[in-house]
Amino acid sequence: MALKSFIQVHHDSHFPIQNLPYGVFKPQPHSLPRPGVAIGDYVLDLSEIAKAGLFNGPSLNNSDCFLQPTLNKFLAMGRPAWKEARATLQKLLSSSEPTLRDNANLRQKSLVPMNKVEMVLPTAIGDYTDFFASMHHARNCGTIFVGPQKPIPPNWFHLPIAYHGRASSVVISGTDIIRPRGQGHPKGNSPPYFGPSQKLDFELEMAAVVGPGNELGKPIDVNEAADHIFGLVLMNDWSARDIQAWEYIPLGPFLGKSFGTTVSPWIVTLDALEPFAADAPKQDPKPLPYLAEKISKNYDIALEVQIKPTGQKDSCVVTKSNFKNLYWTLTQQLAHHTINGCNLRPGDLLGTGTISGPEQDSLGCLLELTWNGQKPLSLNGTTRSFLEDGDEVTFIGCCKGDGYNVGFGTCTGKILPAP
Amino acid sequence: MALKSFIQVHHDSHFPIQNLPYGVFKPQPHSLPRPGVAIGDYVLDLSEIAKAGLFNGPSLNNSDCFLQPTLNKFLAMGRPAWKEARATLQKLLSSSEPTLRDNANLRQKSLVPMNKVEMVLPTAIGDYTDFFASMHHARNCGTIFVGPQKPIPPNWFHLPIAYHGRASSVVISGTDIIRPRGQGHPKGNSPPYFGPSQKLDFELEMAAVVGPGNELGKPIDVNEAADHIFGLVLMNDWSARDIQAWEYIPLGPFLGKSFGTTVSPWIVTLDALEPFAADAPKQDPKPLPYLAEKISKNYDIALEVQIKPTGQKDSCVVTKSNFKNLYWTLTQQLAHHTINGCNLRPGDLLGTGTISGPEQDSLGCLLELTWNGQKPLSLNGTTRSFLEDGDEVTFIGCCKGDGYNVGFGTCTGKILPAP
Ligand SMILES: [Ca+2]
Ligand SMILES: [Ca+2]
Ligand SMILES: [Mg+2]
Ligand SMILES: [Mg+2]
Ligand code: NI
Repeated sequence: MALKSFIQVHHDSHFPIQNLPYGVFKPQPHSLPRPGVAIGDYVLDLSEIAKAGLFNGPSLNNSDCFLQPTLNKFLAMGRPAWKEARATLQKLLSSSEPTLRDNANLRQKSLVPMNKVEMVLPTAIGDYTDFFASMHHARNCGTIFVGPQKPIPPNWFHLPIAYHGRASSVVISGTDIIRPRGQGHPKGNSPPYFGPSQKLDFELEMAAVVGPGNELGKPIDVNEAADHIFGLVLMNDWSARDIQAWEYIPLGPFLGKSFGTTVSPWIVTLDALEPFAADAPKQDPKPLPYLAEKISKNYDIALEVQIKPTGQKDSCVVTKSNFKNLYWTLTQQLAHHTINGCNLRPGDLLGTGTISGPEQDSLGCLLELTWNGQKPLSLNGTTRSFLEDGDEVTFIGCCKGDGYNVGFGTCTGKILPAP
Repeated sequence: MALKSFIQVHHDSHFPIQNLPYGVFKPQPHSLPRPGVAIGDYVLDLSEIAKAGLFNGPSLNNSDCFLQPTLNKFLAMGRPAWKEARATLQKLLSSSEPTLRDNANLRQKSLVPMNKVEMVLPTAIGDYTDFFASMHHARNCGTIFVGPQKPIPPNWFHLPIAYHGRASSVVISGTDIIRPRGQGHPKGNSPPYFGPSQKLDFELEMAAVVGPGNELGKPIDVNEAADHIFGLVLMNDWSARDIQAWEYIPLGPFLGKSFGTTVSPWIVTLDALEPFAADAPKQDPKPLPYLAEKISKNYDIALEVQIKPTGQKDSCVVTKSNFKNLYWTLTQQLAHHTINGCNLRPGDLLGTGTISGPEQDSLGCLLELTWNGQKPLSLNGTTRSFLEDGDEVTFIGCCKGDGYNVGFGTCTGKILPAP
């Protein structure tokens, strides 16, 4: 572990100098939001670093991209600017570099204790798309809803299936989730149920944050798709299974999803994830040429879901999965999204779909873990078929390096009762 | 017809003083976009009217809502501001009012010939949703894709089905549409087709433009929903039927739709449409209480679709429908959209779904008109199963008053070949 910061970073921290994930924060409740990177227990205020003239490379010199209330402008600048920012910040924060280390005034202005800041959504999200890229999840959902004969629809192996999600209700980690009301699937010939969802679920996902977009009508080549992805966040695609089951034929999920989607505040860049790249699964049948990529890459990101029931002191781990469990890669998802000419914009969010693994204890949602409520989970002396009011759900994602982590922190939300 | 403008308005015009629809335009190619209303063959520049201090009511006095490049700020202000603007503009443009009529300098600055301006998208669209609210369309699609036994899914009569659409690819009337490429439904056991869509279609729709939104978790009551709707536009939800048929199970339409959606430039307000209100169809079964409204209202808006093949001089009318053909009302759509707590934002677009009527010549898309290509339409000596490259599709919508129209103008787009 060569690189070290002058800031003390505990070996368990998700945010050593090898990571430097980007977010947007308010140092005080009434401050304007501004971009920052996480370093140990601190947030480095990039607006202060920019104002101090320390971004002095060719892309960022004189740019106001870090004086914005979102990261969209920085994201639009693309990989050369991202590489330059990363190099500048790794140098500035390293133990051997005096510029910030020995400047008490600048340290005072630019380094804010993480526990003092309020994180906000890092980007303005023009559109949010959710894929369905884990085969295990597809098979389990198909078995539960359609039956065990042909659980995975025939199109699934030919294209990364996705639907358009709701951008307005994407919220930052820590935002409470109000239990949705709606129509639930009727039993037999009875009229549909109406009331608070009785099958409220989480979905363990990650999401890609789009960098430079594309013009309408101009698809992005799968081998260039990585240059359009800035980084990844954790994402909880909260789902009301009873609402979803009744509404989704024939146009897909709508109100069963759109009441809230939670993202983690720190965007971990693909550059920081690169040491954790892993081969993607072999695809059979071979994908069509527009989806056939020269390098087919996943990332080894360990994922965990905890539930803390109201009033209990301890969380209970309910599943452990890994980003590697995805069948369709991020770059295939992005290329597929644009093959019809659809335009992406900086800050767009591309969810992976629920990341379920092959084992019972690696399933990514309660629908699968409890087999649609038939086999309740035991949880520190209580049980859960679906989420109860007061439950706090926390996702954790982390890559384990040699003596350091590249982590995502947490993505959390608590269920409040329906109105 | 009491009210008359000092501006000559032909009796066939869609834009008499009774209408005054809102749009955003550039008077010159390099001007900044600004709001305007259509009056006869002119656009009244609202930024000039505002700068002249003529919006002097309590809501709009000193507001900069008409100095913006979109209507979003005005939309967010709600019905009191909309009523005030309408009253101010109807007075200012009336034949008996000298303020603008007799001020040559202000007329010169504020009245721009419509054929000289470039119209742009009137709002920044945070989210676009598409409903499925015509029973005739639902029945025909179900018959074609699922079979004649149970063509309409059982949920359809209980809730206004919808899906999230793609906001980034909503374009203004007149924008060319590039034929999408993608995977088409395979025949039998062959691999899926890949290439330019062979079943490119239009969908005759209208869309509601949302005014004030709602907070996440706070549904809008169906009896207050009209106050959240500013007005309506024509909308062409271009659809690639072969792509849609292959991708849509189980998560709904995605790339079969997201390559482009065209809206007309002028938003006709609900206030202007009020004289054309019509009873909505009786609903059986009775809707659940959250969808049961005191007044259930449609509008009598005659709709027409024309296709002009490339190189031909004349358009050919391919269908005539009416907004009255919708089963679920706009207010039910909006209330349903928020019942789970989903937040709407000013400028959001809520498409009605294809507006098909009961007769063969009132069907709203080629899928229905040609019965999935089996019965090609004859078109001025040529035929069409689906759209060909070079075809220009034009929607027209108009309410017929006593001696005047309240019209939407046109919504048009031409098909360019796939890349
Ligand atoms: Ca999902
Ligand atoms: Ca549609
Ligand atoms: Mg969600
Ligand atoms: Mg469309
Ligand atoms: Ni330790």
